[in-house]
Amino acid sequence: MKTQGVFLLQPQDRTKLHEEDWEDVKEESCLDLEEKTIRTQKIYDGKIIRVQLDEVELPDGKTATRELVKHSGAVGVLAVTAENKLVLVKQFRKPLEKTILEIPAGKLEPREDSQACAHRELMEETGYRAERLESIISFYTSPGFADEILHLYRATGLSSGDVQPDSDEFVELTELTLEEAFDRMASGEICDAKTVTALYIWKNQVLGGK
Amino acid sequence: MKTQGVFLLQPQDRTKLHEEDWEDVKEESCLDLEEKTIRTQKIYDGKIIRVQLDEVELPDGKTATRELVKHSGAVGVLAVTAENKLVLVKQFRKPLEKTILEIPAGKLEPREDSQACAHRELMEETGYRAERLESIISFYTSPGFADEILHLYRATGLSSGDVQPDSDEFVELTELTLEEAFDRMASGEICDAKTVTALYIWKNQVLGGK
Repeated sequence: MKTQGVFLLQPQDRTKLHEEDWEDVKEESCLDLEEKTIRTQKIYDGKIIRVQLDEVELPDGKTATRELVKHSGAVGVLAVTAENKLVLVKQFRKPLEKTILEIPAGKLEPREDSQACAHRELMEETGYRAERLESIISFYTSPGFADEILHLYRATGLSSGDVQPDSDEFVELTELTLEEAFDRMASGEICDAKTVTALYIWKNQVLGGK
Repeated sequence: MKTQGVFLLQPQDRTKLHEEDWEDVKEESCLDLEEKTIRTQKIYDGKIIRVQLDEVELPDGKTATRELVKHSGAVGVLAVTAENKLVLVKQFRKPLEKTILEIPAGKLEPREDSQACAHRELMEETGYRAERLESIISFYTSPGFADEILHLYRATGLSSGDVQPDSDEFVELTELTLEEAFDRMASGEICDAKTVTALYIWKNQVLGGK
């Protein structure tokens, strides 16, 4: 094993930040690569994300600043119909300024169980009710700056239920075969981490992998 | 196709925001599901991320607020050695407060070509030089709130070069077989979107998929 210093997260431009906004943090550390928090500063507290800066002590004793986005986590559902088609929703995503095709997904409500959330989101966005929801994997979407975790579930035993719209966001339901879905990935319409991962997992399953 | 309103992004608590901080945005829209920006407000401008709020007009004419994180994009490298082992780095990730195993990766520098960035990050983090780097796929890590795109490359023709540490972050090099890597995914040590995706793509390739 070699240990090396790489990929500099450059010290934050703190010209606009005031010394009194920093809050001291006491923390014990024992891991090799760990970055110990010296102090933290809240930048923004929203409905979806919270943003903060952490001043950290690096393994070599130097300091650096980390920009952190806090998120409550989300679920995604790999749902394949009896016709062997993947259930997808078409949705406009403001950060991308475009409409993309994604597996049904949504943010965890406070203290919501991730499996319950997967049932809820699948039903709300597609009208499908799943007999079974099995956890496939959970992963962090962007560990460099965000703590968002995505819990991916596989839905089986689908039956059509009532659509239960409950908000101001608009989606369109689409169902695609494995080949069609890979074509949409090649054309860039399927282009987000959870959906790309779900597609490869589905293909893996078809190819005989676990 | 059914169109339905789902997954409420609740209006931002704007008690701390001032009317004069909003900036009007002129924009033309023609897409069905599009959310037209009415005005935008900058919240934070950092080294890694920028945060802003957009007040948008929904397809039904109502308004909502979107919390957006802007990021310059990143690359990840799926590099398999002549011994058929995946090259990984162990790194402490402050947002997660833990050390995880990831494929070599890094943020794009301003105006940097993504392939050049992939070559650079692979070399800096692992010491490996790649004869060829082929684009596999690009995906958005978290399209609900962030515009970060991750360009995934496959590196072939690896040769050991000089490690070129250039920063204050510390990583440890690890090389694992496909089976070992899947074990580490099952145990949760491999747990981020780009590495999970890369593992399934590698497995797919081994199973005979494209």
